[in-house]
Amino acid sequence: MNIPKITIVKVGGKVVENPEDLEILLTNFSKIKGNKILVHGGGRSATKISEKLGIETHMIEGRRITDAETIKVVTMVYAGLVNKNIVAKLQALNVNAIGLTGADLNLIHAIKRPVKTIDYGFVGDIISVQTEILHDLLSKNVVPVIAPLTHDKNGVLLNTNADTIASELACELSKSYNVDLIYCFEKKGVLSDINNEDSVISEITKDNYENLKKQNIITDGMIPKLDNSFNAIVRGVKKVVITNINGLDSFKNNKYFGTELK
Amino acid sequence: MNIPKITIVKVGGKVVENPEDLEILLTNFSKIKGNKILVHGGGRSATKISEKLGIETHMIEGRRITDAETIKVVTMVYAGLVNKNIVAKLQALNVNAIGLTGADLNLIHAIKRPVKTIDYGFVGDIISVQTEILHDLLSKNVVPVIAPLTHDKNGVLLNTNADTIASELACELSKSYNVDLIYCFEKKGVLSDINNEDSVISEITKDNYENLKKQNIITDGMIPKLDNSFNAIVRGVKKVVITNINGLDSFKNNKYFGTELK
Repeated sequence: MNIPKITIVKVGGKVVENPEDLEILLTNFSKIKGNKILVHGGGRSATKISEKLGIETHMIEGRRITDAETIKVVTMVYAGLVNKNIVAKLQALNVNAIGLTGADLNLIHAIKRPVKTIDYGFVGDIISVQTEILHDLLSKNVVPVIAPLTHDKNGVLLNTNADTIASELACELSKSYNVDLIYCFEKKGVLSDINNEDSVISEITKDNYENLKKQNIITDGMIPKLDNSFNAIVRGVKKVVITNINGLDSFKNNKYFGTELK
Repeated sequence: MNIPKITIVKVGGKVVENPEDLEILLTNFSKIKGNKILVHGGGRSATKISEKLGIETHMIEGRRITDAETIKVVTMVYAGLVNKNIVAKLQALNVNAIGLTGADLNLIHAIKRPVKTIDYGFVGDIISVQTEILHDLLSKNVVPVIAPLTHDKNGVLLNTNADTIASELACELSKSYNVDLIYCFEKKGVLSDINNEDSVISEITKDNYENLKKQNIITDGMIPKLDNSFNAIVRGVKKVVITNINGLDSFKNNKYFGTELK
């Protein structure tokens, strides 16, 4: 059987907030051939709007504490401002985009994170991803643009990490597609020397990942990202690439710059 | 040929902003059998959020002047806060809702209203409604929930009257469906005595509409609403009903309270 290919691109808040970067991202994304999905963040815009509304932002270990007022703000910013602007801009690039959250089409069911030591508030841990109608849309050349919100099936929206949404979606879709998962962030890829933008490690396997950690070449914030990526590969995702918005351009020919994990 | 039926319900900002009213609306809407679409407003919430953000709201003859800051607010409120809350709540009622704007799926193409005497700003006049993929979704029992925004195909979102969106959508869908268009507002229907809530006129035809206007029984704000409705009937919509959230309940048996136009 000929398994179709799909490319899932995850892009963070820093890119979607900067108009020039967003234009580069969307232009490059529009050139990717075949089935594709864009998953976006928007945390920086949410923080700004919260500030203007007089709502304090609390972060613990880089995670937003999402109280009752904050879930309203992130719903407005992620699903409204950021998502629909991307959709309109992709339509202008002749990409038939559709903006979705995990509540739309019952796409991503989550539960409110149980309180252990920290109460994260309206934050969702994903239970299941339901892609049946997504397949129909993809088969009509529709391109889903997904905001980082899920729902609990009881009418409550939940704030959910965009990296996690991209990876869970990739794992679920890998049952029917050859999935390439592309994390688009600020650097050109995983760097062997944090101070040298050109020291991109072109390929990391599970084996040399362990060595790179032991040698303290890969540290800190990069570790959860890579753990998450290798987990996706174990669960069936074909390829994970870490790159930036310019590296994305190269995907149009199935070649690319950045770090490939496999 | 057996033409399928579809019910399009339009509901205003006053209902969607009040949690109790919204619950009644969505419960009654969920009971409507067969294909259905919900079109919502959200102006009152937009005004409130604008106020909190320190953005002044300007209205001329009941129409919002949508400057560059205001289009951001209405995008957040209509497509984010209001739309996704409705979607999550419908999912909890086992309705497989999907929230859309006119930019999603290139559903509603509009142009920025040309400036004559008044510059309405980022306000869209509808050019075309494209329902091809909507048919696919409807055939899978998906229920579109539509926010009052359109796009210009050049990447710009435009604020568009929700009554007009409901009626243009109804006209376009009447090419393939028997369309019932239900305007859900505060009163039980068109009243023959504005001070008597129980004086609902159960049926108005084009002929007696003219008489009711001559007799000053139908005046002011009701006239554009009814003109718009009769226009929809001329263009193929089967039935237009004006009612409130409770009148909506009766639709489940294809009977209803309210004013029927035909």
